[in-house]
Amino acid sequence: MEDKAQIQEAIKSQGEVVRKLKSEKASKEQIDEEVAKLLELKAQLGGDDGKNQFVLKTAKGTRDYNPKQMAIREKVFSTIVSCFKRHGAETIDTPVFELKETLTGKYGEDSKLIYDLKDQGGELLSLRYDLTVPFARYLAMNKITNIKRYHIAKVYRRDNPAMTRGRYREFYQCDFDIAGQYDPMIPDAECLKIVYEILSELELGDFRIKVNDRRILDGMFAVCGVPDDKFRTICSTVDKLDKMPWEEVKKEMVTEKGLSEEAADQIGQYVSMQGGKDLAERLLGDQKMSRSKTACAGLSDIKLLFSYLELFRVTDKVVFDLSLARGLDYYTGIIYEAILTQTGVAPPPSGAQNGASAEEGVSVGSVAGGGRYDGLVGMFDPKSRKVPCVGVSIGIERIFSIMEQKAEASAVRVRTTEVQVMVASAQKNLLEERLKLVTALWDAGIKAEVTYKKNPKLLSQLQHCEESGIPLVAILGEQELKDGVVKLRVVSTREEVDVSREELIGEIKRRTSEA
Amino acid sequence: MEDKAQIQEAIKSQGEVVRKLKSEKASKEQIDEEVAKLLELKAQLGGDDGKNQFVLKTAKGTRDYNPKQMAIREKVFSTIVSCFKRHGAETIDTPVFELKETLTGKYGEDSKLIYDLKDQGGELLSLRYDLTVPFARYLAMNKITNIKRYHIAKVYRRDNPAMTRGRYREFYQCDFDIAGQYDPMIPDAECLKIVYEILSELELGDFRIKVNDRRILDGMFAVCGVPDDKFRTICSTVDKLDKMPWEEVKKEMVTEKGLSEEAADQIGQYVSMQGGKDLAERLLGDQKMSRSKTACAGLSDIKLLFSYLELFRVTDKVVFDLSLARGLDYYTGIIYEAILTQTGVAPPPSGAQNGASAEEGVSVGSVAGGGRYDGLVGMFDPKSRKVPCVGVSIGIERIFSIMEQKAEASAVRVRTTEVQVMVASAQKNLLEERLKLVTALWDAGIKAEVTYKKNPKLLSQLQHCEESGIPLVAILGEQELKDGVVKLRVVSTREEVDVSREELIGEIKRRTSEA
Repeated sequence: MEDKAQIQEAIKSQGEVVRKLKSEKASKEQIDEEVAKLLELKAQLGGDDGKNQFVLKTAKGTRDYNPKQMAIREKVFSTIVSCFKRHGAETIDTPVFELKETLTGKYGEDSKLIYDLKDQGGELLSLRYDLTVPFARYLAMNKITNIKRYHIAKVYRRDNPAMTRGRYREFYQCDFDIAGQYDPMIPDAECLKIVYEILSELELGDFRIKVNDRRILDGMFAVCGVPDDKFRTICSTVDKLDKMPWEEVKKEMVTEKGLSEEAADQIGQYVSMQGGKDLAERLLGDQKMSRSKTACAGLSDIKLLFSYLELFRVTDKVVFDLSLARGLDYYTGIIYEAILTQTGVAPPPSGAQNGASAEEGVSVGSVAGGGRYDGLVGMFDPKSRKVPCVGVSIGIERIFSIMEQKAEASAVRVRTTEVQVMVASAQKNLLEERLKLVTALWDAGIKAEVTYKKNPKLLSQLQHCEESGIPLVAILGEQELKDGVVKLRVVSTREEVDVSREELIGEIKRRTSEA
Repeated sequence: MEDKAQIQEAIKSQGEVVRKLKSEKASKEQIDEEVAKLLELKAQLGGDDGKNQFVLKTAKGTRDYNPKQMAIREKVFSTIVSCFKRHGAETIDTPVFELKETLTGKYGEDSKLIYDLKDQGGELLSLRYDLTVPFARYLAMNKITNIKRYHIAKVYRRDNPAMTRGRYREFYQCDFDIAGQYDPMIPDAECLKIVYEILSELELGDFRIKVNDRRILDGMFAVCGVPDDKFRTICSTVDKLDKMPWEEVKKEMVTEKGLSEEAADQIGQYVSMQGGKDLAERLLGDQKMSRSKTACAGLSDIKLLFSYLELFRVTDKVVFDLSLARGLDYYTGIIYEAILTQTGVAPPPSGAQNGASAEEGVSVGSVAGGGRYDGLVGMFDPKSRKVPCVGVSIGIERIFSIMEQKAEASAVRVRTTEVQVMVASAQKNLLEERLKLVTALWDAGIKAEVTYKKNPKLLSQLQHCEESGIPLVAILGEQELKDGVVKLRVVSTREEVDVSREELIGEIKRRTSEA
């Protein structure tokens, strides 16, 4: 240990040498030489106990949740689950990994972001990329044609993490989906109602829900002269309009994707359009657009959707926006995405102030999205039977980030336990009495704690209560034991009152149910 | 499609040919020939639409949870979490995968069961094998020396699945751990109190909690003449006593592990001992055992533990059992395991009726286990600082299996949604009115559903209520609209009453809070 301390001392002073040279802007050679000495010292220490070489971290793009973050997370989940349950959803769960082939061919270009498991002599497995494909697999496998379900679970993407903006490689999705053959746009409208309710209840500031339809996009591409085989790739360029100004998007269409300038300009006119039911009506009369049957079907459905949204009283936040494209391959009809429009909550994605989304202020990015996918279940069914589906996914990590920032900024302390009372003593040798009392409290269903020390100091017991927000202390002493009472102390006011052992449980319940 | 049906017909009759030949024990050549024809037919069908070759299943050893299973699972979790919270625990979460090196060297022989991720050009990752090692990594990484936390999450083991007995490759663990330097056996006793409370509240039938100490095992091996370097391997043979009779265990020790017959017999005497505080006292006076300081330290702690368990009022279910070994490498002190002793709930592991556990009736296997691991956090700390820990893990999958069987056997239907009221109509063209009403109910926080059809039949709406246990129906018709009322129907009694629109929300809340 002597040796180790000496080496650590040497590392410290060598570190200062390096820092000094850097601050003096010494020559690279000189700095490198001293850094090499520093590394050698560190290696000596490492060789000493072997532990220093160990990298103590979580995997790239992932994080632990500490108790405070968990308390916030559970509050958010509880709001979301309440909403899903209010709308009559059941819940299911699926394994974290699927057979690799289950995920194959469902995500287009994004397939490269799937995590594969090592082949350890068995099936080839991949971590789930979203909850939608496992849901479709579940429906096909169990021949379910009708269900309204939610699923809250982690999904995995080998994406470039941007953790300060809430983009992780392991992250939660909160999905709500309605499967079944129903009359058009009714379940679709309910999904939007749910997004509206959740974002309102979480009090994240103002938001917009953009709506579009894959059929309108396809029809628009057709009438603007995009060749059939370029629909998908042009669509994925349009999808970048929330991050890039139109000029750049157009450039990508023309130079990278080989679209004619004329076609691009025609697309440019449409994708700048935003409105409501009126815009859908106007486009149904649009000379060019009305030439596409596909587009007209989409536009009629948008009209119908808005009539239901009026009944659901959510039209104040919903915008029909022809620039909304969404990346995933499996959407077949209506698509939507919710964004927070309030500034200053989280850093905006670069370039958001320009381009199509400028009117909405600085966007903090999408917090919910979804759409209709009528073909996905059929891809899993041996007889290709279709089960029409529509759903929404709440992008919970960004919401966590915002809630965490709000909690940091607020003066209110987040409690991480629910303990109602601490059983404490002021004198020595009362461990047995404390354990007996805490047992009585636990057995009566009261949330109680006791210090795991034979003779703890009263001050340290009270400090623990202050720190973790425990409202009451039940104090035992020789006198109290003689009198058959417990001194009940209110932590916030320091008020103390003797309560008989018989009345203690009732008294604690009364006082903590009030709070 | 015609063709396909014909091929399917041909496959069917060819299948019968093969079955017939097999039942007649025809020659191998003959059978092979007909099987080849069958396979060719199947390939034709596969080539026809390509979908038939797709395997529609979850990965080996994993399963989906359907809504009914989820309802049971959530009830079990809620009981367990309530107990953890009653004892003042916070909760944390960690990623599903860790750096591979984080798990290396923690699980002894079981390391081969770890799932590795494919090397996709980045860090080498493995799925977590338990929640204890990630917890220790979390403590070391965040320099936490004091915490009482629970963690409920899935863990992964490439074990041989036995799904009917609740053994999966992906399964939940519910862990409660206390980290910190405290006076001996107080947190350890609380862990046992928690197991006792949870198993009692879940009403799984009678149970026993076996207790032992690694130091007693080590001391026992020493005094029985086991060479130092054979402690671990002999310990893992002792661990099989709950599945194998003593004779087989002894045989493994002598013939496979090379232990002397004499030493094995001495071990045999000790591992048949069961008792309480009295047994610990007796062994402290045992001529042979008292020669080992290690064993004496363990025995004194068992004595102390039982004195706390008496105060916690749980000694009726706790047995000091010298045959309890537990496999994991990281335990350093007290260890424990809870087993259900009731017969007939689940199929018993083979051989359980013989041997050491015969007295306890047929064991359905361990449902909880844990112990003290004072060295694990230090393995992650660059300065090897120790953080003493003790914890327990509830083996929830076996509990689910039992609860599911109980639910199947019971007449009470498990509800999978919480819907209070269905908004229905008896006449056509009332979709708009239904949507308006359900919006008013949702906005008032009532759990409500509406059929996604323009003109649904009243009967099918009522049937849906019966099937999913929805207690109330709010029925709208022309007359009701004219009168400004809603017909509220109680599904169970078929009683109907007109309620004014103003009073409807209050009336639904009143009726559903009663239930």
